[in-house]
Amino acid sequence: MEGGEFERIARLRALYAGAHEGVELDTGDDAAILAPGIVLSVDAAVENVHFRRAWIGHGATWEDIGHRAAVAALSDLAAMGAQPRAMLQALTLPEGTPDELVEGIGRGFARVARAHGAPVIGGNLARGRDVTITTTVVGAKVGGTSLMRAGARVGDALYVTGELGAAALGLAVLETGGRKHADAERFVRRFLAPLPRVAEGLAVLGVAHAGIDVSDGLVQDVGHLCDASGVGAELEVASLPLARGHAVLAARLGRDPVLLALTGGEDFELVLAAPEGAVIAGATRLGRIVAGSGVVARGPDGKPIRLWAGGFDHFG
Amino acid sequence: MEGGEFERIARLRALYAGAHEGVELDTGDDAAILAPGIVLSVDAAVENVHFRRAWIGHGATWEDIGHRAAVAALSDLAAMGAQPRAMLQALTLPEGTPDELVEGIGRGFARVARAHGAPVIGGNLARGRDVTITTTVVGAKVGGTSLMRAGARVGDALYVTGELGAAALGLAVLETGGRKHADAERFVRRFLAPLPRVAEGLAVLGVAHAGIDVSDGLVQDVGHLCDASGVGAELEVASLPLARGHAVLAARLGRDPVLLALTGGEDFELVLAAPEGAVIAGATRLGRIVAGSGVVARGPDGKPIRLWAGGFDHFG
Repeated sequence: MEGGEFERIARLRALYAGAHEGVELDTGDDAAILAPGIVLSVDAAVENVHFRRAWIGHGATWEDIGHRAAVAALSDLAAMGAQPRAMLQALTLPEGTPDELVEGIGRGFARVARAHGAPVIGGNLARGRDVTITTTVVGAKVGGTSLMRAGARVGDALYVTGELGAAALGLAVLETGGRKHADAERFVRRFLAPLPRVAEGLAVLGVAHAGIDVSDGLVQDVGHLCDASGVGAELEVASLPLARGHAVLAARLGRDPVLLALTGGEDFELVLAAPEGAVIAGATRLGRIVAGSGVVARGPDGKPIRLWAGGFDHFG
Repeated sequence: MEGGEFERIARLRALYAGAHEGVELDTGDDAAILAPGIVLSVDAAVENVHFRRAWIGHGATWEDIGHRAAVAALSDLAAMGAQPRAMLQALTLPEGTPDELVEGIGRGFARVARAHGAPVIGGNLARGRDVTITTTVVGAKVGGTSLMRAGARVGDALYVTGELGAAALGLAVLETGGRKHADAERFVRRFLAPLPRVAEGLAVLGVAHAGIDVSDGLVQDVGHLCDASGVGAELEVASLPLARGHAVLAARLGRDPVLLALTGGEDFELVLAAPEGAVIAGATRLGRIVAGSGVVARGPDGKPIRLWAGGFDHFG
């Protein structure tokens, strides 16, 4: 998401703000919470923005597009430590859309719905120039508690589930047609068929102080967590968990493996702020919460790396 | 909605069907119900399908577009006799969309949200070629009961709140630029700034046996109610409630006033099947439920009128 979009969201939020009875958590986190403990979020997957028709038959299927749309939405429930309960799916389809497209999306979406106990209980179908899948997810707060962006404390360690940058690398493969490399297909699957970290989000309830899913990219998402918590963060580049074969494939595509891990979006892993020494199964410690604000990534030499949109450099 | 769309929806429903624990009411009604009593629906308003940019400054504002999108979604809660509790708003916006557009939509949407106690607690912003407003509404079942499409009984009378065809006539004014007529603006407002019949839906809980909102058009929506209830219906054309000035303005625009009332969509009135003699404030009796299937409209002479997409004729 770009800078201008965040300002626009902030202006809309201001229009919608107020003292709302029966609302436990308003806009601004990964999901909202309506009393008692109904967790809600909405996410859209738009043709030529989140996926391309040209991928179909060249590494992707419409099932993948449906799968990915459902996972992207469920990931927001995972980031709240909520139990998925149901989904609603609003589709816009261009005139003359073939049945295979709609049924492919439906099958992929249904597979994720079944896997996560979140049946599709409602929907809408409308004409539109772009194929758009807008997914509303409904979850339940478990044990009276939620994981939120706010709550990280100075001295907390930062953990991340799984691996980082694999989805962005898979997207690069799809976009550049670099599928001849032996590992390429594995990374394409990481982009097209991710898993929402629902079990991981539930498992850290009461352990982690704060959490967010990696959708915009690690640095940006840790930034959101820090802003909500009123703290800063330091990330150790040497600790970034990279998938097997990540560096080699990135190099072949002319992409920086570390940059992909720091800024690549849509891994749908969870970043968690938890006390140093907390045991979080399957997660990697990759930094810490510090006083102040903003996110600094430190290279292996301990020196800060300056990041900007689309790139980064060493300075200082 | 066209015939092909209903088949497509049926196929998607089949993909999503199953025995879903914790689901009180699945797809196929105006909204779904998740236990205990969480009523959910989603609706989309798409540029050049549900509204046109060319209207802005020529009878419509972006506030109107936002207002209408919110009402169309809330109307589904009204049709269930549910109490609105919250909304989520997913927007797609083309590159270079001006702030006025987004803030106009936001103001119109927020006004409806406040008026109906349904604050906007979540949202999503994405790039797309069309301006699209996808609204998820969350409501609460009241007194352990809901109004559904199923439940109409042979011998019930059919009632409708408010007036019919006014929105379609207002749309015709917008589309043909016939705003010089004295009544034109009033009908344009009926299209652009409708009201969801929330209070009316709540008021008939326990009185009406079945209900639906008029979104596709009276005949089509009564047809949905009949299909869900396993009954047929007879409508009396002479009883159709028309707004003051409807017939005159329709004639000036070369439109049939009765056809507008029978087939014009988006009035967002409620059609209710209730025992003969039931007292439903502000509603008009316009027909009855009969054995069999399908909807027949009878002219003042008692003879059936045959309807088809876009027109109708007298026969028999």
